[in-house]
Amino acid sequence: MKSDHEHQHHHEHKHRKSIVNRLARIEGHVRAVKQMALDDRDCPDILLQIAAIRKALDNTAKLVLTDHLESCLVDAVHEGNEEKVLQDIKNSLDSFIR
Amino acid sequence: MKSDHEHQHHHEHKHRKSIVNRLARIEGHVRAVKQMALDDRDCPDILLQIAAIRKALDNTAKLVLTDHLESCLVDAVHEGNEEKVLQDIKNSLDSFIR
Repeated sequence: MKSDHEHQHHHEHKHRKSIVNRLARIEGHVRAVKQMALDDRDCPDILLQIAAIRKALDNTAKLVLTDHLESCLVDAVHEGNEEKVLQDIKNSLDSFIR
Repeated sequence: MKSDHEHQHHHEHKHRKSIVNRLARIEGHVRAVKQMALDDRDCPDILLQIAAIRKALDNTAKLVLTDHLESCLVDAVHEGNEEKVLQDIKNSLDSFIR
């Protein structure tokens, strides 16, 4: 599962299982809304469901970021090697908050 | 496809086909990101993909809203019956813009 250039530190992603489960639920939710659109359901009903999916997606992103802060960043700081990790986090936040 | 209590007006949802296609693509994208999480891929890569999905979702919502404005609202105004439709739109926007 780990890449070849792994160092001696081990990036433990505590929340990965929960992240996978959340993405699986979101996938099912998107499929259900696609079916609503196929069934010509009302626009406001579809919009509410899309808003719910977006919220679930944001909560999942928050969990990925938590994993990243708790594992990767802490490890990087221990190794005095945090610049790249901090830049990655900055880039990730840029894509969410415009 | 239409409900039984359809009136003489016909709600033509011009963008429904495109909405279904976009949701199908988003569904596949979520499934791919779920696989990335299972494969223990880097957090910043996953965050960037989630941000891309959110953007695609917002664009889809915009299209649903366009459909709603162009068909349902215009029809309702023609019938002097726009209060409920306007309230629905307000509720939908509330769920997106907080």
